[in-house]
Amino acid sequence: MRITVWNEHVHETRGDEIVRGNYPDGIHSAIAEGLREHFGASDDVVRTAVLQDPEHGLTEEVLDDTDVLLWWGHIAHDQVADEVVDRVHRHVLAGMGLLVLHSGHYSKIFQRLTGTTNSLLWRNDGERELVWTIDHTHPIAAGVPDPIVVPRQEMYGEPFDIPVPDELIFVSSFTGGEVFRSGVTYTRALGRIFYFSPGDQEYPVYHQPEIRQVLANGVRWAAPRQPRRGQTAIHKPEQGWFA
Amino acid sequence: MRITVWNEHVHETRGDEIVRGNYPDGIHSAIAEGLREHFGASDDVVRTAVLQDPEHGLTEEVLDDTDVLLWWGHIAHDQVADEVVDRVHRHVLAGMGLLVLHSGHYSKIFQRLTGTTNSLLWRNDGERELVWTIDHTHPIAAGVPDPIVVPRQEMYGEPFDIPVPDELIFVSSFTGGEVFRSGVTYTRALGRIFYFSPGDQEYPVYHQPEIRQVLANGVRWAAPRQPRRGQTAIHKPEQGWFA
Amino acid sequence: MRITVWNEHVHETRGDEIVRGNYPDGIHSAIAEGLREHFGASDDVVRTAVLQDPEHGLTEEVLDDTDVLLWWGHIAHDQVADEVVDRVHRHVLAGMGLLVLHSGHYSKIFQRLTGTTNSLLWRNDGERELVWTIDHTHPIAAGVPDPIVVPRQEMYGEPFDIPVPDELIFVSSFTGGEVFRSGVTYTRALGRIFYFSPGDQEYPVYHQPEIRQVLANGVRWAAPRQPRRGQTAIHKPEQGWFA
Amino acid sequence: MRITVWNEHVHETRGDEIVRGNYPDGIHSAIAEGLREHFGASDDVVRTAVLQDPEHGLTEEVLDDTDVLLWWGHIAHDQVADEVVDRVHRHVLAGMGLLVLHSGHYSKIFQRLTGTTNSLLWRNDGERELVWTIDHTHPIAAGVPDPIVVPRQEMYGEPFDIPVPDELIFVSSFTGGEVFRSGVTYTRALGRIFYFSPGDQEYPVYHQPEIRQVLANGVRWAAPRQPRRGQTAIHKPEQGWFA
Repeated sequence: MRITVWNEHVHETRGDEIVRGNYPDGIHSAIAEGLREHFGASDDVVRTAVLQDPEHGLTEEVLDDTDVLLWWGHIAHDQVADEVVDRVHRHVLAGMGLLVLHSGHYSKIFQRLTGTTNSLLWRNDGERELVWTIDHTHPIAAGVPDPIVVPRQEMYGEPFDIPVPDELIFVSSFTGGEVFRSGVTYTRALGRIFYFSPGDQEYPVYHQPEIRQVLANGVRWAAPRQPRRGQTAIHKPEQGWFA
Repeated sequence: MRITVWNEHVHETRGDEIVRGNYPDGIHSAIAEGLREHFGASDDVVRTAVLQDPEHGLTEEVLDDTDVLLWWGHIAHDQVADEVVDRVHRHVLAGMGLLVLHSGHYSKIFQRLTGTTNSLLWRNDGERELVWTIDHTHPIAAGVPDPIVVPRQEMYGEPFDIPVPDELIFVSSFTGGEVFRSGVTYTRALGRIFYFSPGDQEYPVYHQPEIRQVLANGVRWAAPRQPRRGQTAIHKPEQGWFA
Repeated sequence: MRITVWNEHVHETRGDEIVRGNYPDGIHSAIAEGLREHFGASDDVVRTAVLQDPEHGLTEEVLDDTDVLLWWGHIAHDQVADEVVDRVHRHVLAGMGLLVLHSGHYSKIFQRLTGTTNSLLWRNDGERELVWTIDHTHPIAAGVPDPIVVPRQEMYGEPFDIPVPDELIFVSSFTGGEVFRSGVTYTRALGRIFYFSPGDQEYPVYHQPEIRQVLANGVRWAAPRQPRRGQTAIHKPEQGWFA
Repeated sequence: MRITVWNEHVHETRGDEIVRGNYPDGIHSAIAEGLREHFGASDDVVRTAVLQDPEHGLTEEVLDDTDVLLWWGHIAHDQVADEVVDRVHRHVLAGMGLLVLHSGHYSKIFQRLTGTTNSLLWRNDGERELVWTIDHTHPIAAGVPDPIVVPRQEMYGEPFDIPVPDELIFVSSFTGGEVFRSGVTYTRALGRIFYFSPGDQEYPVYHQPEIRQVLANGVRWAAPRQPRRGQTAIHKPEQGWFA
């Protein structure tokens, strides 16, 4: 399993004490730390990349060597180069798994894959989020308490302008009474995509063991089922099969 | 449009003051009244039937003359004759629409159609229910406020042991923080089925105009798209089509 | 109902005798003629637009005045201006229906909405296509023979690199033994999308009454359920709902 | 992995030379042999049971000790005791996987789980079946040729009166031009169900390595994801969760 955690890494470097308190080494480091608890501590297994790296750290070589990419972004979506978005898109279609996290709902790559705006209702009042399991047979929900309690969190609510998911795994409620499809999956060509909303720069959500369990489950689920087929997506022969 | 509202009609005749206050003429009468606001006041359009009627009021003739059947039951599911369940099942497969309401989740007919127990979490503390629209293009959600506020209601929560719905239209939250797939659809052969959970004998839910709007929308959606094909479901010729 | 039929209109002007024989006034004219049989003969109801028109005939005003847009393209997908694709995309999200026809599977607008390449298997040998109904309750299949027989047609086969459809209405087989999901639906925000594959410049498919019935059914299904909300898609308030 | 292959075992004992030529030790033996190629040769792993055994070989003890049950039946569906059907149903809801094979579409257990008749079109002319993969990311399709060619087979065609599947994995075509959803999945409570149509007593389909690969994949997919919870399905507490 070769995992790359991507983060725009902007909030953490602006001197916001709350954000720095939660994620002193960046959100990507906390996510990577959680994954290493499940997949081992080697840097060969879990690597990180950020917006500020050359080509945002997502070169052809890095993506070729990535089974599952995790994506966290919020206020710098428009700084992500279209060329890199094209490249990630191509790799997803060819079988690379993708986990889109929290405010990544507005990322160019998720919009490219869904065809929708992915807009949602939101309010940041540090409310309690309860993450309920809907699909009790799904491997992403395995070993996860029902509900997961996130003590303080930004509210994300319906209407969530996404396509009908292939699978609906989690639905959250918030103190204010809103509900949200907080864990959904899609398939695009050979690529598996899992969107999971809990996680914000202002709250230490990515330190919770239950959240780390979901991310690890999601990585296992999204990993390619078969060897990646170079840069191609589903095979399209020049001429059709003939009996 | 020919509509039949069925009710087990047991709670209302037991001298419970709260139930009698909410539904002095039975839950079926309140539901029928709401439907008449949308479909006209004639008894030819909206009729009612109850468990205590001969054959529970659901004879072959009544079902032949019904486009959409609404089903409310709670504490007398096991008193519904299997023969009548078989008959209703056959008519649904042949194209009769079915709306299953609230505690009807445990009815024999809904279990027959889903293949599951349809068990759920519950607690009756008179909590506020918020019914959020998930599918904003669906005709069942047309003209419905988002959310619908039900001031006091029994809590129904996940896990709701139903098959993955064909369409997920509404999700509710409750004061206690639970969530519930409160409006879902299924198709079985030519029959369309809509389950809608708000509505309990202890609360005057079926008097709310928004709830009546949903039921009217549901009836329109579930009505057969084409003339009913006698007692047959999807056509099965003795021998296949041949080029 | 206000319908706009769009066609790239390139094949028909190149002197190909077969294409001109099938569609002397352009494919769009044959499609429009079929729709007028169902929706009336007025130019106010069914209009056409082609690639060569200013802004491809798809100005803001035209799209504002369109309930359902039909799209036929094949060899000039890359000549469609990105600005027009953006505009159509925005209108679909705001509720305009879209029917994507045959080789339109590779159009920029369909790729934008699906997030996939929409590649498929193909072979042009004038084979018989049988279009089988899978969803017998769907209004798009109403009044349609099962199967529709298209005597001679280009083969489109699986793998068809599309997302899992919201609804699978038709599956076709071809003389060579291939199968194809020939009628599928998607929803994106408030917009309903129907892809239907039968129809090629080399065969008179759009003159068949059964095919015209499907297109008319598709237009009715894709038409907005509610007044269009200006240029907005699903409503996203600045601040969330609060109890 | 503990697998039980169930067969009504009637055709094979009636002196039909074709059937005996294909399956001298019964269809269950051929299926079991194929599974042993994938899961090992021990009788502890792959066992068989037939209609004629006491309680049809499906006692509480056997089902408790079964991760995945395969079901083949055809002309003796009505001889299966309702009590055994109830028992199998209960175990599926509690997490036991189920593979329903070929003419098992009409079995009591599959009808119980689907709520439909599962009727279909059929014709037995020894036609060629092509089994095309639709879901290229699904583990059940892993390592399977696309298409699988079954040289001679009974035709099963649409309309297939099943609920909309959770996942559509395979679609077949036949020499006569019919199409059929030949590989579909459902989930009921904690149980995973895979219906796969290729396989008939008159043709040696269960000896084909590709078919055996699909069955082995199906068993792996349907196996419980977590320890079975005794006889209970999805947990339903007496009183709901409270914050």
